[in-house]
Formats: sequence, C-alpha cells, structure tokens
Amino acid sequence: MHADIKMETLRQLAEVVDQQIPFHNLLDMRVKQYDLKGLEMTVMMRTELVGNIHQNILHGGVTASVLDVVGGFTAFASLIDSRDDWNIDELKSRVKTLSTIDLRIDYLRPGRGEVFTGTGTVIRAGNRVSVCRMELHNERGDHIAFGTGTYMVG
Amino acid sequence: MHADIKMETLRQLAEVVDQQIPFHNLLDMRVKQYDLKGLEMTVMMRTELVGNIHQNILHGGVTASVLDVVGGFTAFASLIDSRDDWNIDELKSRVKTLSTIDLRIDYLRPGRGEVFTGTGTVIRAGNRVSVCRMELHNERGDHIAFGTGTYMVG
Amino acid sequence: MHADIKMETLRQLAEVVDQQIPFHNLLDMRVKQYDLKGLEMTVMMRTELVGNIHQNILHGGVTASVLDVVGGFTAFASLIDSRDDWNIDELKSRVKTLSTIDLRIDYLRPGRGEVFTGTGTVIRAGNRVSVCRMELHNERGDHIAFGTGTYMVG
Amino acid sequence: MHADIKMETLRQLAEVVDQQIPFHNLLDMRVKQYDLKGLEMTVMMRTELVGNIHQNILHGGVTASVLDVVGGFTAFASLIDSRDDWNIDELKSRVKTLSTIDLRIDYLRPGRGEVFTGTGTVIRAGNRVSVCRMELHNERGDHIAFGTGTYMVG
Repeated sequence: MHADIKMETLRQLAEVVDQQIPFHNLLDMRVKQYDLKGLEMTVMMRTELVGNIHQNILHGGVTASVLDVVGGFTAFASLIDSRDDWNIDELKSRVKTLSTIDLRIDYLRPGRGEVFTGTGTVIRAGNRVSVCRMELHNERGDHIAFGTGTYMVG
Repeated sequence: MHADIKMETLRQLAEVVDQQIPFHNLLDMRVKQYDLKGLEMTVMMRTELVGNIHQNILHGGVTASVLDVVGGFTAFASLIDSRDDWNIDELKSRVKTLSTIDLRIDYLRPGRGEVFTGTGTVIRAGNRVSVCRMELHNERGDHIAFGTGTYMVG
Repeated sequence: MHADIKMETLRQLAEVVDQQIPFHNLLDMRVKQYDLKGLEMTVMMRTELVGNIHQNILHGGVTASVLDVVGGFTAFASLIDSRDDWNIDELKSRVKTLSTIDLRIDYLRPGRGEVFTGTGTVIRAGNRVSVCRMELHNERGDHIAFGTGTYMVG
Repeated sequence: MHADIKMETLRQLAEVVDQQIPFHNLLDMRVKQYDLKGLEMTVMMRTELVGNIHQNILHGGVTASVLDVVGGFTAFASLIDSRDDWNIDELKSRVKTLSTIDLRIDYLRPGRGEVFTGTGTVIRAGNRVSVCRMELHNERGDHIAFGTGTYMVG
C-alpha cells in the first residue's frame, strides 16, 4: 500500500470518527489530528460533561470515553503503518471489527479546564492485538489522566 | 448513625445521582436501586449512545461511564454501612471528595440490547480507599462487561 | 478431537506446569487440578516466600505469579474445550506461544495462611485472545486477591 | 526532616529491600539505586527464573514481582520527599503498612536477556494513596514490560 493510500485511509477514518459516530457527536469529541503515529482528540468543557457539580469537574466517564477512542484508533494507525499489502477496502472492512478488549484509566487530578486533549502511543503492536498508552491533558498542560488499553485490531 | 438515617442519606444521594449530575442526564443514566449493598443503574439504548454504526452497538465509553458511577457509589454505600458515628452532614461533605483512583473495564461482548444495567460489589472496604467489581448486563441477561475500580472514599 | 484426547493433553500439560517450569519449582507451585474448566494451583507458605517480615505475609509477587499461571492455563483449557479439530501435536505447538498480554491484580487482604490456592474462570473466550478472572484464597477460605488477565492463546 | 535524614532513611530502607526480604533473596533481586526519585532494582537471568523452557524467557511472575517492589518503594520515596515533619522512627513505622492495592502489568515482549532492570515514576502522589508507573528493560535497553500500581502509603 502506497503512503498516499495510507494517508487517504486515515483521512477518511478521521472524518468518520469526527462526524459519524453518534456518541462522539453527543460529547462533541473532535479529531485534532490523525496520522500514522496516532489519533489526537479534543473535547471542550461544557455543563453537560460535568460529573462533580460542586467543583465543576469533567466526569470520569468522559475521560474514559476520549482515551478509549484515542487508544483504539492509535492502535489502528499503527496497523495501517505496518502493513503494505492491504488496500483501502480491506482496511475499511478491518476497522469494523476494531474493538476494546480491556481498558485501564488512572485518574491523576481533577478534570478542571476548558479544552481536554487526548493523545496515545502504541506500546505493543500486533497483527491481531495491540496495546496503547494514552494521556489526557487540559489546555494548560495539566496532566489529568493516563490510560492503558488492549485492542483487537483484526 | 441509625439505620433510618443511613437510608435517608442513600435516598438523597440517589436523587442527586439520578437527577443532578449533568453528564448522567446527558446519557440518561438512571438509578434503579441504591441501598447499603450498592448502586444499580440503567441506561436505555438510543442512537446517541452508539459507538459502532455498522452494528448498532453501545459505545465503550458509555459502558465505562456507567460502571465507574456504579463502582464509586457502591463503595460509598459500603462506607455508610460501616460507620455509625457520622451524621448526614458529615456524609454529604464526604461524598464531595469521592473520586476514582483507577478503573479497569473488561469488554466481554458487543453492547447489543435495549436496556443496560450496571451492578457492583465491594471487594475491599476501607476508610480511605475501597475497591469494587462491577458488571454490565443487557435486558436479556447477556453479560456485556466487567469493571474493577479503586476509589478514594474519604 | 475426542474427549479422551483432550483429557490426555491436559494431563500432559499439568505435568509440565507442575514439574518442568523452573520458576514454578523455585516457588514450589503445584497443580491441584487441571480440567476443561481450568487450572487450580497451590503454593505452601514458607519463609522464602515472605514479603513483609514484620507480619509474615506472602509477597505480592507470589500472588501475581500464581494468578498469572492460573489465568494463562485456564484460558488454554477453554481453547482446548472449544476446538474439536486439533490433535495433540497442534495443541502442544500452540501452548508454546501462550503468553500474557496484560494482568491486573487486586490485593484484598494481607496474605496470611499456610496454603494458598489459585482458581480461575474464563470471562471472554476467543480463538486468539482470552480473558480470565482469577482468585487466591488461603486454607481458611479467606479471599486474598483477585486477578484479571488477558492472554494470547494462539 | 532534614535532607540528610531523608537520605539516611532511604539508605536503611534500601538495605532492607536488598537483603532482608526473603522473597527478594530467593529471586536475587538487588537494589541498584534508591533516592528521592524512586527505586531501581535489578534481577539477573538464571535458570530458576525461567517460565518458558522452549525459549528461555523470564517468567511473567518475576516481571510482576520486580515491578511491584519498584512501584511500592518509589511511592514511598515520594512520600519521604514530600514530608518534612516526620522523623526516622515515624517513617519506619509507616513503611510497615506500605501495601499494594492493585497492580497492572503490560507485557510488551518476551523477557529475553541477562540483566533486567526495573525503574519507576510516581504519577499521582498522595498522603494515603500513590500511583506509580514502572518499566522493565533488559541490558540491551529492550523494553520488556510496563507496570502501573496503586499503593497504600500510610
């Protein structure tokens, strides 16, 4: 698979993740960047995402949701990166079976802020199973949470 | 603390969890039961909660959100159960600092169904830190996910 | 594969796990039972396994070791159970690639006791990846630890 | 507490971890360095620590054991670093209750090598509960495993 086909696959996937997943729209999760290194997503703080009304803190479920998506699509980017023998249709078929096996979230500090950004890195790349580590930061760079996810990528 | 005060505390907390947490309202998460044994919550499937549009499956972030809430308030119920020396104001002050330290979700099968119910059990009870195991089932009794959460309860 | 071939495979595997893994011998971990439902292992308390000298408590690494082995071979038993098309040589070849992807241990109470028994159950069975939950109890039935492990089974 | 008392406490603790914990001696786990930033431990490969006899690979239980110890004492170093109001006796009393609440190990690649080194970093520091991330590398710098542990530090 040529590099430009890989990039085109990522571009199309980014559009799906950004616009066509109903739950992402409900939370207004947005794709900031998606390349062969992984997916970067943001979510803006707003009243509907608050979990602790006394302190105006992001609900832990939002953190888990963002990091799960970042981890899964970062794992998939790594799969795209590693394979040169698939065409865009095979990749599209494969992404349908992308799923989370297990997910761990470590909450480091209260989710205060206005824009939260999730990033990820593959720590174990496989043809079937990949493992990612993810991080969530606010707009001031405060580190809100770590994540670790194991994903079925094929 | 008398048993009836404990029950009144739980009743008031259940109302908060059911109606006053913005993110719970966004997902339409509802308290089914809250007693000294723990919290039981439900969420109805609807389009906005879908993560996989090809298969109409609940987003993994919804699963994580429900199980995190179930775990935290189940841990808090256990704390209420164990202490006889607190009044309702002390408990209300204490619940404000209830927070998740870490959370693990094991996704067992795709989240297909119409009503999802989360339940939990305390496996390690402490005055500061408690650990819960949680489960999510659909209305047919299919086991969708397991959770394990470590919570700061005071 | 006939049921008796499955049982013979398990019997041979049990002998390997019980006697031929150097680290199992170092800890004196013993197979109590191995059938299609899973592996049950025991370890006897002795001075060399102590982690906390003030309180004579089992080292947390022993707990993790026992539960990891129980989880992996319980996952493998489930694979044997599910497949009727493999012969004993294929299974032996497959067990060589059995490996842990990730492992979570929840320590519930101090590891006091004389005989510790680890048991496990498959919670997600797959042809490639399986997930197990494990438990460690002492001889009085005190629940010492929970485990959750994700294993590559082929 | 003066800086030199902190260092003296760490020096005494390092001696205990290195020489007086029976299970550490059984595995021949050695303290490489212990300062306010954390604990660094090594274990040499030898036949008794092998888990996979076909491939001469370190048993996953050894990995879990080393990373658990590294995480716990790294968390404790952070506690020592943060408090100036304790004397050496208070610290010694406090270390007796140091315990692991939960531990996650992510196995990245087979444990091949001759010397394995575990290092750790505190990601959430608390007066009661701390969370660490740990890593295991072999002598060639290959990254064998990640760990995440939640510890009761007081």
